[in-house]
Amino acid sequence: MGTNPRYLSGVQPSGILHLGNYFGAIRQHIERQDNAFYFIANYHALTTLHDAEQLRRNTFDTAATYLALGLDPQRATLFRQSDVPEVAELAWLLATVAGMGLLERAVSYKEKKDKGIAASVGLFTYPVLMAADILIYDSDVVPVGSDQVQHLEMTRDIASSFNHRYGETFKLPAYKLGVPTPVPGLDGQKMSKSYGNTIPILLGGKKLKKLVMSIETDSTPLEDPKDPDTCNVFALYKLFATEAQQQEMRQKYQGGNYGYGHAKLELLGLIKERFAEAREKKAEFDKNPDLVEDALAVGAKRARAIARDVLDRARSACGIV
Amino acid sequence: MGTNPRYLSGVQPSGILHLGNYFGAIRQHIERQDNAFYFIANYHALTTLHDAEQLRRNTFDTAATYLALGLDPQRATLFRQSDVPEVAELAWLLATVAGMGLLERAVSYKEKKDKGIAASVGLFTYPVLMAADILIYDSDVVPVGSDQVQHLEMTRDIASSFNHRYGETFKLPAYKLGVPTPVPGLDGQKMSKSYGNTIPILLGGKKLKKLVMSIETDSTPLEDPKDPDTCNVFALYKLFATEAQQQEMRQKYQGGNYGYGHAKLELLGLIKERFAEAREKKAEFDKNPDLVEDALAVGAKRARAIARDVLDRARSACGIV
Repeated sequence: MGTNPRYLSGVQPSGILHLGNYFGAIRQHIERQDNAFYFIANYHALTTLHDAEQLRRNTFDTAATYLALGLDPQRATLFRQSDVPEVAELAWLLATVAGMGLLERAVSYKEKKDKGIAASVGLFTYPVLMAADILIYDSDVVPVGSDQVQHLEMTRDIASSFNHRYGETFKLPAYKLGVPTPVPGLDGQKMSKSYGNTIPILLGGKKLKKLVMSIETDSTPLEDPKDPDTCNVFALYKLFATEAQQQEMRQKYQGGNYGYGHAKLELLGLIKERFAEAREKKAEFDKNPDLVEDALAVGAKRARAIARDVLDRARSACGIV
Repeated sequence: MGTNPRYLSGVQPSGILHLGNYFGAIRQHIERQDNAFYFIANYHALTTLHDAEQLRRNTFDTAATYLALGLDPQRATLFRQSDVPEVAELAWLLATVAGMGLLERAVSYKEKKDKGIAASVGLFTYPVLMAADILIYDSDVVPVGSDQVQHLEMTRDIASSFNHRYGETFKLPAYKLGVPTPVPGLDGQKMSKSYGNTIPILLGGKKLKKLVMSIETDSTPLEDPKDPDTCNVFALYKLFATEAQQQEMRQKYQGGNYGYGHAKLELLGLIKERFAEAREKKAEFDKNPDLVEDALAVGAKRARAIARDVLDRARSACGIV
C-alpha cells in the first residue's frame, strides 16, 4: 500500500454519477489510488433517499462506475459504508463527546433544511457519522470542497474532545482543499443532480447524443464569429480536449461559419472516446454484478480490519469492554 | 423460553446498585425471567459517566449483582448493550426516519441538561438509541416508570415512521407502567445516587451497619410513642418485613420505650438476612469474574442472534445491502 499518507473520501450514491462528479472528485480519486480509501456512503444517503430499490441500484452503479473508470481494488480500498458497520458504533461513542453546540452551528444542516430536505435526526447528526467515517480508518488526509471544510473541522474537534477526555485515541486528519473545476450543466448552471442538467458519465449512444445536442447556446447565426469563452459547449469541450484541440476549436469559433451544432458533435466525439472503455466495462459489470461484489468484498475486508482496530482502541479508552 | 410476551428492560451501570434500584426494578426483573431480556446499558452510561475504569467496574458489578440476586442466565437473557453492537447500526437507520421535532420535545433531555449534565449529541439522541434497543429484540412489553413513558411513545413513533416509509418491519412494543415503590434514602428523600443517600443492595458488615444507623429520624425521646408512618426507618422496614413483623414493630413504635436505634437494628437484621446468600455469591463472582463473563456470553449470543435478524430485516427494507 506504499507509505503515502492515507487518503479518505466518501461518495454518496444518491443518483447516477455525472460529469460534474467526475471532474469534481472521481477523476482525482482514480488518479490517487495508493493507500486511498473510498467508500460509498449508503448510510448517509438514507438521509435524502427513501427508495430502497433506488438506493441499492445507485450503490451498485457507483461501485461499478468507479471500477469501470479504472479504480483498481487491489490498490485502492473501495467499499460500501455499510459493510463496515463498526462506523455506526463509533459514531455513538463520538456522539457522547460531541457537544450539541457544535452541531447546531453546522451550516450544511441548515442549508439542507432550507432546500426542503426533511429535518431528521440523521440529517442533524450526519457530521458525527462523518467524523466516525474519517477517524475509524486513521485517515491522514481528506480531500474536500469548500463546503466540506466545516465538517472536517468538526471531525477534528470531536476527535480532540475524545482524546482529551480519554487519552490519545484518534489521529487528527488534515484536509486538502481541492481547486474547484467548473463543470457547466446543459443549461449553463453548475452541473448538479438537483438542477436536472446533468450528463451521466457512462451514458452512450443516442441518449448521450440527444443530451449533448440539447446544451443551451446563444442564437448567434451560423456565419457569425462566436465567443468560445462564454459558450457552454466550449467550456465542456475544454475539459476533454488537448491544448491543441482547444486552440483549433477556438479558431473555428472565432472564424465564423462554424455552428454550435458542429461544436457539439466534436464534444460528443471526445466524451465517447474518453469513456469508451469504461462504458464497455460497466456493461460487463451490469451483466456480472458478482464482479463488483467481489471487488467490494476485497475492500470491505481490508477496511474492516483497520476499523476493528481503531474501534477497539476507542472502546477500550472509554470503558466499553 | 416459553410463550410469554417478550419483556425488555435496560439498567444503567452508572453506579453501585442500591435499594431504590432493587425495589424499583431489579426485584421485578428477577421475578419475571422467562423470555425476558435485560441489558446493561453501557453505551447509554457514556452520556453521564466519563471514567473508563469506573464504567468497566460498574458494568461488571451490575451483571454480578443481578446474577447474585438470582437471575438465571439460562432463563433470562442478560447481556451488555455493547455486546450487541448491531444496536448502534439500527440507531442510525432509525435516526434517518426520526424527526428532529420528536427529540426536541423530549422532556428528559431538558431535565438532564437542567441538572448540569453536559448537552452532548449522545444525550440528545439517547431516545433513538433506546428505540433501537427495544425494537432490535422484537420486544413485546417494556416495563417503565412514569418518567419513561415518553421514551416508549417515541419508540413507537419512530417504529411507525419506519414501517410507514419502508413497509412493516418493526413490532410496536407496549409499555407496562409500574406502580412506584417509594424507597426513602438515608435522609428521607427518595433514594437516589444523585442525592448521595443510598444503601447499596449487597453492602454488608460494619459499612452496612453504619449506614443503617445513620438513617435520619426525628428527635422524639426514647420513652415516647412514635409514629411509624412518618418514620424513614419504618418505611424501609416495611419493604423487608412480613405483615406480622410490620404489625409487631408498629405496636412497638406506638407503645413507647422503643427507640429508633432499636428499630434500625431490626431493619439491619432483615436487610442482612434478605441478601445474605446474594452477598456470598457476589463475593464469589468478584473472585471469579469469568463466571460473570461466561453468563454474559450466553446472553449476548442469544440476544445477538435475534438482533442480527431484526437488523437484517431493517437493512433490507431501506435498501442497505
